[in-house]
Amino acid sequence: MHVQLNPTGVLNLLSQLEVDLLQQSSTSERYRLFRNCALAVLNVGSHTDSSSEIYNKYQDFDIKLITRERGLKIELTNPPETAFVDGSIITGIHEHIFSVIRDMLFICQKYAQDITEAKEITHMVFDMLRNANALRVNTDPNMIVCWGGHSINEIEYKYTKEVGYQLGLRGLNICTGCGPGAMKGPMKGATIGHAKQRITDNRYLGLTEPSIIAAEPPNPIVNELVILPDIEKRLEAFIRVAHGIIIFPGGAGTAEELLYLLGIMLHPENAKQKLPVILTGPKESKAYFEELAKFIEKTLGKEALGKFEIIVDDPVQVAQKLKEAMPKVREYRKNEGDAYYFNWTLKIEHEFQMPFAPTHENMANLDLHLEQEKQQLAANLRRAFSGIVAGNVKDEGLRAIKQFGPYELHGDKTLMVEMDKLLQAFVEQGRMKLPGSKYIPCYKINA
Amino acid sequence: MHVQLNPTGVLNLLSQLEVDLLQQSSTSERYRLFRNCALAVLNVGSHTDSSSEIYNKYQDFDIKLITRERGLKIELTNPPETAFVDGSIITGIHEHIFSVIRDMLFICQKYAQDITEAKEITHMVFDMLRNANALRVNTDPNMIVCWGGHSINEIEYKYTKEVGYQLGLRGLNICTGCGPGAMKGPMKGATIGHAKQRITDNRYLGLTEPSIIAAEPPNPIVNELVILPDIEKRLEAFIRVAHGIIIFPGGAGTAEELLYLLGIMLHPENAKQKLPVILTGPKESKAYFEELAKFIEKTLGKEALGKFEIIVDDPVQVAQKLKEAMPKVREYRKNEGDAYYFNWTLKIEHEFQMPFAPTHENMANLDLHLEQEKQQLAANLRRAFSGIVAGNVKDEGLRAIKQFGPYELHGDKTLMVEMDKLLQAFVEQGRMKLPGSKYIPCYKINA
Amino acid sequence: MHVQLNPTGVLNLLSQLEVDLLQQSSTSERYRLFRNCALAVLNVGSHTDSSSEIYNKYQDFDIKLITRERGLKIELTNPPETAFVDGSIITGIHEHIFSVIRDMLFICQKYAQDITEAKEITHMVFDMLRNANALRVNTDPNMIVCWGGHSINEIEYKYTKEVGYQLGLRGLNICTGCGPGAMKGPMKGATIGHAKQRITDNRYLGLTEPSIIAAEPPNPIVNELVILPDIEKRLEAFIRVAHGIIIFPGGAGTAEELLYLLGIMLHPENAKQKLPVILTGPKESKAYFEELAKFIEKTLGKEALGKFEIIVDDPVQVAQKLKEAMPKVREYRKNEGDAYYFNWTLKIEHEFQMPFAPTHENMANLDLHLEQEKQQLAANLRRAFSGIVAGNVKDEGLRAIKQFGPYELHGDKTLMVEMDKLLQAFVEQGRMKLPGSKYIPCYKINA
Amino acid sequence: MHVQLNPTGVLNLLSQLEVDLLQQSSTSERYRLFRNCALAVLNVGSHTDSSSEIYNKYQDFDIKLITRERGLKIELTNPPETAFVDGSIITGIHEHIFSVIRDMLFICQKYAQDITEAKEITHMVFDMLRNANALRVNTDPNMIVCWGGHSINEIEYKYTKEVGYQLGLRGLNICTGCGPGAMKGPMKGATIGHAKQRITDNRYLGLTEPSIIAAEPPNPIVNELVILPDIEKRLEAFIRVAHGIIIFPGGAGTAEELLYLLGIMLHPENAKQKLPVILTGPKESKAYFEELAKFIEKTLGKEALGKFEIIVDDPVQVAQKLKEAMPKVREYRKNEGDAYYFNWTLKIEHEFQMPFAPTHENMANLDLHLEQEKQQLAANLRRAFSGIVAGNVKDEGLRAIKQFGPYELHGDKTLMVEMDKLLQAFVEQGRMKLPGSKYIPCYKINA
Repeated sequence: MHVQLNPTGVLNLLSQLEVDLLQQSSTSERYRLFRNCALAVLNVGSHTDSSSEIYNKYQDFDIKLITRERGLKIELTNPPETAFVDGSIITGIHEHIFSVIRDMLFICQKYAQDITEAKEITHMVFDMLRNANALRVNTDPNMIVCWGGHSINEIEYKYTKEVGYQLGLRGLNICTGCGPGAMKGPMKGATIGHAKQRITDNRYLGLTEPSIIAAEPPNPIVNELVILPDIEKRLEAFIRVAHGIIIFPGGAGTAEELLYLLGIMLHPENAKQKLPVILTGPKESKAYFEELAKFIEKTLGKEALGKFEIIVDDPVQVAQKLKEAMPKVREYRKNEGDAYYFNWTLKIEHEFQMPFAPTHENMANLDLHLEQEKQQLAANLRRAFSGIVAGNVKDEGLRAIKQFGPYELHGDKTLMVEMDKLLQAFVEQGRMKLPGSKYIPCYKINA
Repeated sequence: MHVQLNPTGVLNLLSQLEVDLLQQSSTSERYRLFRNCALAVLNVGSHTDSSSEIYNKYQDFDIKLITRERGLKIELTNPPETAFVDGSIITGIHEHIFSVIRDMLFICQKYAQDITEAKEITHMVFDMLRNANALRVNTDPNMIVCWGGHSINEIEYKYTKEVGYQLGLRGLNICTGCGPGAMKGPMKGATIGHAKQRITDNRYLGLTEPSIIAAEPPNPIVNELVILPDIEKRLEAFIRVAHGIIIFPGGAGTAEELLYLLGIMLHPENAKQKLPVILTGPKESKAYFEELAKFIEKTLGKEALGKFEIIVDDPVQVAQKLKEAMPKVREYRKNEGDAYYFNWTLKIEHEFQMPFAPTHENMANLDLHLEQEKQQLAANLRRAFSGIVAGNVKDEGLRAIKQFGPYELHGDKTLMVEMDKLLQAFVEQGRMKLPGSKYIPCYKINA
Repeated sequence: MHVQLNPTGVLNLLSQLEVDLLQQSSTSERYRLFRNCALAVLNVGSHTDSSSEIYNKYQDFDIKLITRERGLKIELTNPPETAFVDGSIITGIHEHIFSVIRDMLFICQKYAQDITEAKEITHMVFDMLRNANALRVNTDPNMIVCWGGHSINEIEYKYTKEVGYQLGLRGLNICTGCGPGAMKGPMKGATIGHAKQRITDNRYLGLTEPSIIAAEPPNPIVNELVILPDIEKRLEAFIRVAHGIIIFPGGAGTAEELLYLLGIMLHPENAKQKLPVILTGPKESKAYFEELAKFIEKTLGKEALGKFEIIVDDPVQVAQKLKEAMPKVREYRKNEGDAYYFNWTLKIEHEFQMPFAPTHENMANLDLHLEQEKQQLAANLRRAFSGIVAGNVKDEGLRAIKQFGPYELHGDKTLMVEMDKLLQAFVEQGRMKLPGSKYIPCYKINA
Repeated sequence: MHVQLNPTGVLNLLSQLEVDLLQQSSTSERYRLFRNCALAVLNVGSHTDSSSEIYNKYQDFDIKLITRERGLKIELTNPPETAFVDGSIITGIHEHIFSVIRDMLFICQKYAQDITEAKEITHMVFDMLRNANALRVNTDPNMIVCWGGHSINEIEYKYTKEVGYQLGLRGLNICTGCGPGAMKGPMKGATIGHAKQRITDNRYLGLTEPSIIAAEPPNPIVNELVILPDIEKRLEAFIRVAHGIIIFPGGAGTAEELLYLLGIMLHPENAKQKLPVILTGPKESKAYFEELAKFIEKTLGKEALGKFEIIVDDPVQVAQKLKEAMPKVREYRKNEGDAYYFNWTLKIEHEFQMPFAPTHENMANLDLHLEQEKQQLAANLRRAFSGIVAGNVKDEGLRAIKQFGPYELHGDKTLMVEMDKLLQAFVEQGRMKLPGSKYIPCYKINA
């Protein structure tokens, strides 16, 4: 099966020099990455979150760029059928394919070499968002980042939809990490809210990365998709575009996001930042948040609890609180001379920016003791959870686990016990993986 | 509580002469109609379908037009709270208020006198739709009229959403009679489908009439609302804008719509018309359609069965069949030299156009015998069901029933038995009224 | 030669009932008016200003409305060639044809009967402008009405272009009576000014009437054309949409406009109105304005001189003064609670609104004595000049003069002498008719 | 005098890293270039074409970029007054300032190093046009490049306006090198033509370079301005975006353009290219074209005469011929699989791409003999005229001439005599410099 797609937007205009960049022999790393991302966005209906499984299933999938007199064409060979309606690709998915190309090309043209300086990393995040037209001037703060699990139960899912609906009724936009569950619900709800309010410049911003996109493909409602090169830049993008953050129930990835956020918000230079953070879920999820809060308190201390608020079972209140916080976010940015569309003044330490490769060695060497700087501890815990996410769903992680067995984590007994409890709860609640298979932990906690 | 609304669209530009038309002393009939319609669209969250109940509950509601230097303002006194989010009116409802004003003004300026000639009635329907900007040239056929009950069960409701979603994915638009249930579900579903397909000129056309609008207020997703003066013009509007029709499970109103449609489609001059009609519902509703089909066969004959198709539990097939029929509709219109946006060539007999006032006398005098022209029988049956709808939910009907007791219907024994069975089924399935009260029939069948 | 035109805008949507209104047998008065107006706008390149001559030349021209599946078509037979570029009609002219149809239909549908009440006449002017989408809410005052002769010399023409350019640079829009000379120059100049300022919602509003349109066809730059039914409604439209008025050199028509304006501005109820009026021309035209001012002073008195300002040879100053006056116009309207887009509060006496038919009898009976109310005198003088315009260029007037000889005007000797001098100057300066023929006066002044 | 400008378009979104690039100490070359270009576009009303004179006059002019919370601001100190209307900068000029910033930033970010490979030079030209949004897909060929002198007489100027008007009426767009005379006239004329045809996506593309922009500042009608780094890339941009070329009378610059064009069109690989070229002017300029043709014939041979057509005094025919050629251009591109918006297949030899620095030495060493490849001769003649343009109006050239006296040119006697005659004619016709000063030749021809 061959399908040809017309280009959209700037991709109408590529020179042969540029097209060649994504067309090198299929063994090249860059092409592999491009092909896998394209496959991922096409495979959105999928019911598995195992990247390996997806790549195995579609080994005969191929994507090719063809230059034509009036612009570029994309040729797909054997694409997943779910991307099509009566033979025509769903427009939202069509656009995602082009977001993949846009970001791949941008990286390989402008950021061929690795960058390591803090200032340059932040500029790269900015540059990629700008190139994706995801930064809007002349717009008051209204972007709510929603984090939460890709594998949540039906009650939680309905709750995320209701929160999204209430946000949408209040003219707020949604940014998530793409994927199903808590990342899809708020967007669907907001779509109805926006429709009732006749908001047509609604934004459903999806921020993803090549290694997770297959496990958490962007829902076609996502109308702005940016593929950042790694989880660290993706997390930086999240918190620099956020005007408010909601955290729904989730597993290891959600814990990673929360720890990243707290590690940064605890930095003294960020003390005055205005960034409302709300943890919320249906009444059935109350216990979940209590456990999470306990873990945070025991590891990062009481101060960390002051960086967020927990609201149980009240979507209207969640939306109202965030709506009311927007003028304060605006005022803070204005006073600081900062942009509304990108939080330049937020201080992010270098250790939160540098990529962490979750090899068995790196995981084993993580310093997980309570007697270190809170911020440093947050950074290391973040890395630990990041590694677990990789071991659960990312292609590279899955392969490493297959080869070498579970990651070994070492540290303080107290800390290790707390961590084990938390992870155990995630497993029991089915938050680690989509239903359909028994979860085998990719980690071993050594106290 | 006082709220002022800014005008939208053409209502920015009214002369004092025009504003005066809707501002006469509150006892005037025209003002009462206007106020009630405005109240109805504001009361969309309501859980009752009794017009009387609503009017009673909001006796202190008032609406006033105020002329201001830069256009008109609307002042609302004591409006229903559900129309507001954090103190601001929902934009969709705001627009509906202005649709009410637009149509009221248009009627009282241009159609002050009653019209009775067939040609002129059709022109009026056309004129009102045009004035509401609901006729689009240069657009291929894509308007699917969805009929069905306002009181349906959860399974049926989900099914209507899924059908709407599949229609939306295929770029089809939705027209319904406003209101909850089968009139809201397809629009919600289509909203998600359209979002995924990035369709921004999506149309959710609501056609209503002053006497039903309170019982079936337009959902705020309705982005084009037209208030026709009576059910007959509303029905004519439906079938002249339709490029395809879906009938979901419903009660007396749905039966009225189906009989109206069949009465017209059976006219010899309409034999070649292309207008796909599909009756559909979840597998749980299979029996419903079988009964309905039996009733049609027994009353209007086998030929009538050829005018529609029943598809059970297959939203994708429903959407595909309609999508595939669109080019045929287009071709037919093209060949006939007819417009795509308004089916001028459809023959509608005068008896289907003339308003039927469901007084006890008129109801009792309905000729309900099998031995008459099929088309004539359809017209009379349509009137009978129309009267029952009035007795169930319309203000005037409710008051008449309260004063004089149930309508008496007379006719052939066979016919009366069939009719009784059908109505009885509607009652048992809860299709006559929204849940929350025991249904007391407003009719008596005399065989 | 047959040409078919596609419809534009609302004319896509006409019912057969409506189309029939403009298609009655060619002897009907309404059709004749429609055909002549259509011919006039097609004949824009013409070098004559004699309506009769044009109608005679194009006796085989015909226009027909044809209904087609996707809207209306216009069929032209033997249209003037100058309306076409390489066989395609110029879009601006195409639109003018449809403005003609729109206004003709509107009048015959909504204003079939004559109206005589002041309030209703004003409402009709408003209604026609609104129907033509020529009233814009949410726009600050910026409409400059430019009056002046259709037959002016090259230096004056260049001057009107320069004034238009300076107005355009300042974001002001232009309204004229269509036609060549002082009505075309400002629009051409403003087009360049607007282009440099990237103003894309620029307005070149042309207000005309069926009896003058052939002599003064709208230049295709006119992007909003409204055909009012007679000169009195056209004059009312001018001064109710004007936020400022410029009067360039001109002949009898320009004198008519100035007298109309002064007659109204001298009304005590209009004493506080803000409506800047500037008479301007190149230095070569200085004498012209001095004469005109003298005539005004001798007839309407010193007070009248205070209603306008004369600026010689300074386009920048003209534009600056008008630009600076706009906030005052705005403030006045705001304080009065009046619209910006239509000056409702301007008092226009009934005698300025009622049509004056320039028959020989009516002209002879005009009361042209100095000892009457200034406002009354202005009204009568206005009628006298209006008659002369008819005798110069309007079809009916030309035919009356041909049949009965020149109009006879009677009045005070002093007044008659002044009037004669003024008219004589117009003749000598070539302002009565376009160059190319010797002007034979259509009037006789009897002192 | 200080003026602050708001940003437009993409320049809303600059990071501090980027702003710093244009803000280094005022001695830096990059800043000087930026400041001079900005000054040039502000100085558009100027009546001199001497870059040096302009830079001397505005020594106290300064431009500074300031970052603000909601984007960038530009601060101007002592800008030329002609850029302002009543204290506000003309929007067209405002945009030009931002085009300067856009192109300067783009070059210093993406093309910091010199590029010398043919493929990469062409890609850079493409990249700059694309970045300026000057390449439009989904548009049929319609871009007419107009070349000709900045110093032409009134009759010729009117003629260029009339040609522009006729092009505009036919929906064709205009591209010129900016500046007055033959570069401004066609745009002004086309503006009126486009207005009559209601064309709102009209394009007035100006292609310039830093060293000529002061002498030939872009008229504010130019609504797309691109500043290419040097004359060679500018010339390449011209012919790759052109779908047709008009050459009006002009001086050395026009001769340079014609020789460049012929040098390329004579390349065997371009034999099948469709690119209509018309030399045209009023009847008074007939002799001019005859001389030019003779010079071409004597130097490049008869074949070169076949590459263009001379049309005297017939603007309609010029426009018609180009309009008729557009479908052929389209067909050619389609058959070749080439883009409509950029002529990739046109072969341009490396010697036409490499920058030529008109030092006295380089000028003296030019090989100006008839016995060389025609294409080589065209390249060298092009360089000779290019040097003369520099000596006439470019800052660097003017300074070199001041220091070292006129350029010396050597070559074949026959050729030298022809060249002398041609240049002499340019001088006598006042084509070398704007009127107002006596022209002193910047060259010496040595036979």
